[in-house]
Order: sequence, then structure tokens, then C-alpha cells
Amino acid sequence: MFKKVLVANRGEIAVRIIRSLKEMGIATVAIYSTADKDSLHVSIADEAICVGGPKPTDSYLNMKNVLSAALLTGAEAIHPGYGFLSENSLFADMVGEVGIKWIGPRPETIDLMGNKEHAREEMRKANVPVIPGSEGYIHSADEAKKVADEIGYPILLKAASGGGGRGMRFVFTPDELADKFDNAQSEARIAYGDEHMYVEKVMTHVRHIEMQVLRDQAGHVLCLPERNCSLQRRNQKVMEESPAASVTPEMREELMDIVTKAVNAIDYENTGTIEFLQDQEGKFYFMEMNTRLQVEHTVTEMVTGLDLVRLQVMVAAGEDLPLAQKDMKMMGHAVEMRVNAEKTEMNFAPSAGKVDFVYLPIGGPGVRIDSALYSGDTIQPFYDSMIAKLVAHDETRREALTKLERMVDETQVVGVSTSQPFQKALLLDENVLNDRFDTKYLEDNFLPRWEKEISEDAEQAD
Amino acid sequence: MFKKVLVANRGEIAVRIIRSLKEMGIATVAIYSTADKDSLHVSIADEAICVGGPKPTDSYLNMKNVLSAALLTGAEAIHPGYGFLSENSLFADMVGEVGIKWIGPRPETIDLMGNKEHAREEMRKANVPVIPGSEGYIHSADEAKKVADEIGYPILLKAASGGGGRGMRFVFTPDELADKFDNAQSEARIAYGDEHMYVEKVMTHVRHIEMQVLRDQAGHVLCLPERNCSLQRRNQKVMEESPAASVTPEMREELMDIVTKAVNAIDYENTGTIEFLQDQEGKFYFMEMNTRLQVEHTVTEMVTGLDLVRLQVMVAAGEDLPLAQKDMKMMGHAVEMRVNAEKTEMNFAPSAGKVDFVYLPIGGPGVRIDSALYSGDTIQPFYDSMIAKLVAHDETRREALTKLERMVDETQVVGVSTSQPFQKALLLDENVLNDRFDTKYLEDNFLPRWEKEISEDAEQAD
Repeated sequence: MFKKVLVANRGEIAVRIIRSLKEMGIATVAIYSTADKDSLHVSIADEAICVGGPKPTDSYLNMKNVLSAALLTGAEAIHPGYGFLSENSLFADMVGEVGIKWIGPRPETIDLMGNKEHAREEMRKANVPVIPGSEGYIHSADEAKKVADEIGYPILLKAASGGGGRGMRFVFTPDELADKFDNAQSEARIAYGDEHMYVEKVMTHVRHIEMQVLRDQAGHVLCLPERNCSLQRRNQKVMEESPAASVTPEMREELMDIVTKAVNAIDYENTGTIEFLQDQEGKFYFMEMNTRLQVEHTVTEMVTGLDLVRLQVMVAAGEDLPLAQKDMKMMGHAVEMRVNAEKTEMNFAPSAGKVDFVYLPIGGPGVRIDSALYSGDTIQPFYDSMIAKLVAHDETRREALTKLERMVDETQVVGVSTSQPFQKALLLDENVLNDRFDTKYLEDNFLPRWEKEISEDAEQAD
Repeated sequence: MFKKVLVANRGEIAVRIIRSLKEMGIATVAIYSTADKDSLHVSIADEAICVGGPKPTDSYLNMKNVLSAALLTGAEAIHPGYGFLSENSLFADMVGEVGIKWIGPRPETIDLMGNKEHAREEMRKANVPVIPGSEGYIHSADEAKKVADEIGYPILLKAASGGGGRGMRFVFTPDELADKFDNAQSEARIAYGDEHMYVEKVMTHVRHIEMQVLRDQAGHVLCLPERNCSLQRRNQKVMEESPAASVTPEMREELMDIVTKAVNAIDYENTGTIEFLQDQEGKFYFMEMNTRLQVEHTVTEMVTGLDLVRLQVMVAAGEDLPLAQKDMKMMGHAVEMRVNAEKTEMNFAPSAGKVDFVYLPIGGPGVRIDSALYSGDTIQPFYDSMIAKLVAHDETRREALTKLERMVDETQVVGVSTSQPFQKALLLDENVLNDRFDTKYLEDNFLPRWEKEISEDAEQAD
């Protein structure tokens, strides 16, 4: 086992990882930007190295500095967490080059899954159902039209290196194709230096169902219960839960088979999550794979009792997974919501600054709160606005949601605005409570209604 | 189900109970003393009623005021928590008289188990093994001598109404008997207004093993996994864990049989805990029964995934237990330690006052912290010094202890002294780590060593 590991991240996930490492008897190295010198992850690590200024590119994304910190402290492995350098194959490669173990998949795997069209191709080869669309790249609007004629409109033009919406266009009719193709391709060229494009059918009334998986170096696979992450705002997950109400035990078995095939096909190492769309008939279509630990791994831990970070570290160190698929337990239902420092009533604008007082409603059965926040802390404007993950676990979905609502009610953060009003409204929404929502529900239905309500409330208050 | 319930307690247990009630959709009434007006349990309840001045006898033990608060607010039931009025049969009776449901056993049961000799008698009748000793009361030193001749010295003279050491004497030789009997009996007469005495054999090298049980009004019984609470200082539990390493699955079955017999024999309602001594051969002897929820119910919840307060309320409302014995799950190992506001290095003297800052290391899998403390809170000198229960759950006992040690390390309470140094020393002790301790280990072995160490450290520092 490693003697010392560097955690290349900040905030709650750095705290989370450092703690698991400590419990394994591994010495921990934190990295931090000058803005984060008083952060919790710095204070609980055995060593902490400043890697640059407040801007992420100066510190947490500064590959040279992060690598130097690892070399300087004699770290034997690096855990990247999520975000920042976690899916950067170049960095993963550099880490390997200097003889440090990357706690994650091999750089080639990150690359393969990072190119969305290559990932689709690989999955097709492994008999994993993918969203209907082009097979391979398309090089012109004409080629796109041929695919569209086959699969039907609307279609989505996507950049192979894409992510976060750049190089992506919805096309509803054939006459829009030419312009939109050119625009998307030039956007992709600028954003990613890669103009490769492909086409996918736009699937409506679908759920976002994902499955986390672990695979050790000896090839043992452990699929974890699926999560439903269909409540999304601007492609950001707003609520995550496990298991998914729309997934029957038979479908779970089917998903596990698909996922096992997929990770075996690409000789995957460590943990990752395969994201699927589930249509109204219950069928699954491969969307993409995240080659890292995810924010919402918490709900999976709550229903299985496993420590996924510990398993990641064991796998990276060459150990076998300590449990077989048949030994995995599944108990109750878990739901997570992310409390962000933002003004939900002002179009979710970030809200940074000093937090004079914080109370997080810990305690009691089935309550988990992952957070790096403390009374007197300062929320920096440079980073993600998430300040706490509230996770509720109970016997049934409805009980877990009720518990989560209570947790949202009791959470107090003085000094900045938080997303609690938005979360509270979601937890009172009949469609959310009754599991009647697809990936478009929030933006097409809930948000317009909610925004109207709060603007009316504001008018009445005037 | 009840519409409104009053919680007749304060601190972490009031918070714990109020939250479960809220999650059940039940309106909550908190009570508080003038000293507690800014306490967390007051702020999270739907209603809060001041029941008197800071001294417990003026407020939390003031039966008339607590009952008035319940009547005034229209509460349909009272949950007493632990301590205060929780084992006061007179109060339970008063509550029933005015048509309010007592969330606990019937007053007669509290009485029966409160009289330690009656409890022994009742258990003997139900074929539950009791600690060897007198059968019924003894009225003179001569009668005590007869029993002692049979069971052997040392013996313990005990007051039937006793508790906390008053009216209790260890007797090592026959010639001590006459004086000690007279002293103990007159002490009992003064303390409890009851001079009934009985004799028990002093059992050495024993563990304190207890089993929590639930029994509904229809007579269904649910026995929960046993706890080992052998680490004790002055009869106060210092560490509690579940399951007990010294209890095999066969012994657990045996205990469950004993406990089921016992609660059926006395037509028990709601939850309670039967405490046993386990000798080196693994045999159990009934010690006493706590007719209420216990501080350490947390570890039981961690290994079973159950919410015991919710079950208590359901049973009190006349509902059947929602699960049968065979459906009870048992997963991993849980350990609890109580952080107290006290100066451990000054003979554990209480340390009250303003808490300028508190950080409790929440987050991650298997972490639970029950506490009513917040940054800026004041620890009152009038009440119990416990400020947080740190509970760690993991797959194995050793992993849970390691997690707990990390939690003790990371806990920060600025403004008062806490028991953390003592807890840390315990978690580094080889005997504690290897489960080599009986009920006398702490006082006879660990504490003398530890106190010597810290006094030497203090000398070196001079």
C-alpha cells in the first residue's frame, strides 16, 4: 500500500479523500492556492503545499506545480478527485512518467472516453447500445443530413472533443443543417482545436440513469446500484438518488451486464461512471463515461455501505477488490442535493464572501453532510459554488426526501446567499416527490413556474 | 398517528427526537429552561415552552410545569428521552391520567424494573439467569451472611431502590458485614425512603453486555444486536460498540431468547435495554433493565439502519412493529464515544462556558455525530457535560476504531476543555484496540497508568 498520497483538489472532495486516506494509515499531502490557505482540507492534511495563486489555472490546474508538489513531498500516488485535472490524460501521463501512480484509469482510457465519438464506437463494438446517430465522424452538412434522414429530426450536432455545450447544436429541420454545421464546427475548432463532429438523435422524455463501476487490475468488476440524476439545470445535476425508481431489478441486472461488458472491453482500471439515457420503454442508451469519482458517489455509498475512495486507493495499489458482485449489499434509498452559494432568485448568480456562521444539521440516522465549510470560513469567487452536499438515507424514497427537506430547512449559512429556497421548492414539488420527471422537467416545466412565483412574490412584497 | 408530541428533554437527545418526529410529519413541542433559551432544540421545534429556571428541579424535572406545557400546547404524547423524567413512574402515571400517551413502558413496568430486587425476582420467574445472590429482601446482617456463605465473598449489599452507588457496599469478609449492612441500610432509608436491601455476588472479570429490545402493544418483539459497554469510569459508559466481539452468533441467539422471554413475561411496551454481565465462560447474568431509550442507541441504529425513535413513536401510537426479527439486518461494526466538556487532566472536572468556535468532523461514509452544539453556543453548568456523541461505523471493529480516532483528532471546540485527550489515549491503547478489557479495566488499569503519564508530562513541562 502507498505510504503517502497527494490529493490534487480542494473543498469537500479533498476533505473526503484525505479522511479515507488517513483511515487507511496513509500520509496525506494537500495542495492549495493562496486563496485557500485557511481551508479545511489544508488543516486536516499531514502536509500542505501551496501550488499558486487563486485562479485555477495558476494553482489547481497548474500541472507543473501540482506534479512538483508530489515529487517534493515524496507522494507515491495522486488522487485527482473530480473536476480540475481529474480527466486530463496529459496530466495522468505526466504523473505516470515520473513514477507516481495515478488513482484513476490509464491515460489512454481517459483519452478514449474523452473523445465522445471514439467512446461511442468502442461501446458499439462491445455491443453496448448507444444513442442512434452517425457511425464515426461526419465531415459535412450533407453527411449529417444522410444520418438525419435515417434516424429522424431533431438531431444533435456534437463535437467529438466536446463538453459543456460548446460545438453543439440542435437541428430541427433539414434547412437549418448547413449553417448550424459550419457554426458548430468552427466553435469546436476554436474551443478544442479539434473539428471532428458527429451526430446523435435528440431523445426526448428520457431519464439520466448512470451506473458507477469499479474494476481492479486483475479484471474483477463491481457494478454499483444505479443512480437517477435526471433533475438537471444547464447540464448540472440538481438532485441525485439511488436506486432509480424507474429501474426494475431485471433492468438493473441488464445494466450491470452492459457496464461489465463495457469496462472489460476497454480494460478499465479503477472507478468510473457510465451515463445512460433511459427511454419511456425502459431501454438504455450509452451517453458517455466519466473516468473519475463523481460528486454523487455519496448516495451510492449510503445504499451499499462501501467507501468508494478506499476501494479506489486499494485498486490503484494493485490490490484485488475486497468483495465480489454477489456480496454487494443494497439497503434503502439515498438522495443528495447540493447546496450552492448562489442567489437562486437572481438567476443563480454566485454569492461569494465571508461566512459568519454556519450550521449544518448533522446527527441522527441516515444523515450525511459532506462539506468543507466552517463558521468564519470564506467562500472564494474563483471556484465552484457548491458548499455542502446534503445526503439523506432512509428505507423508502419518500422518507429519504422528507428527511432531506428537513435538512434543507435546518441548514443555516449566514453571510452569503444559498440555493436552499430552490431546493426547498423542489422538495415540495409533487412531480419530484412522485418521481415524475425527465431530463427536461426542470428547465421546461419547474423553473418557469417557480421563477414566475418568486417574481410575483417579489411584486407583492413591493 | 399523533399530531403533536412534546419532547421533555434538552440537548442532543431532544434534537434527535424532534427530528424523527418532524420526519414523521408530527408537530413538535420543545421545553426549555431559562438558561436554554438559545439552545438548538428550541430553535428547531415547531413550538417551545419555557418550563422554569436553570436548575433541573425547577424546569426539566418539574413535573407540574412539563405536564402543563403538554396540556397547554395540546400535545398528544410525551417523549421523555433519557435521564430527567424518563424513568419516573409517577410522572408517567400523571401523563396517562390526563389522557396523554407516554412514549415508553407503562408506569407499573417502570416501577417493577426500578425496584432492583423486584426486577431480579421477575427475571428469575421468567427463567432469565440473574447474578447469584439473595432471593427476595434480606432484613439483617445475619441473613446476608447466610447468603454470602452460600455464594462466596466478596458480596455486594444493595438497596432495592438504589442507583448510582448510594445504599451500596462491597463486603469482603464476614466480620465487615454487621457495620456495612447498618450503614448501607440507613443510607438507603435517607436517600430513597426505602430500607429494603438485597445481596449480590461480586462478579469479577466480566463484561457489560446489553441488548436493546422493542415490543409493540400487540406483543411483537424485536431484539437488536447486543452492545459492549464495558469501558466504564464511575459507572459511566465511556465507549459503546455493537456488535460485541465476545458474543458469538450462537450467544446472540441465546441472548435474544432470554430478552424475548423477559419482555414477554412483564408485558413490556416500547423500547428498553436489558443489561447483562458476561463472565469469562461467556455466560450472561441479568443486571438490570433501563426502561427508556439509551444514549448509545446510536450504534445500534448504525449497524441495523433502523430509526429507533421512529419505532418508539409508532409503537406508542399502537402500530405494529414494521419488521419482524428475521428481517433485521446487521451490517459492520459501530463505536461511539461521548465528548464531554470537562478537564480530563483535572480529575474530569466539568468545564462550562461560551463555545466561541466548534468544528465537528462530519462527512464521508460511516460518520455520525449527534450534538446540539453550535459555534457561539454556551455550555451550561447545570446539566450533563456531554456535548457530542461521535459514532463511527465501518466494516470491521478495527476500522471503526480508526475512523473514530480520526474524528476525535479533528473535533475542535474552542472556549471550554473537552475529554478528547482522554478519548485519544483510549483509542491508542492496545488493550482497547484488541478488545481486551472488562468492566474494571478502565479504573483499575488504564486510568492509573494514564494519570501517571499526564502528571509526569506536566512535571517535565515545568
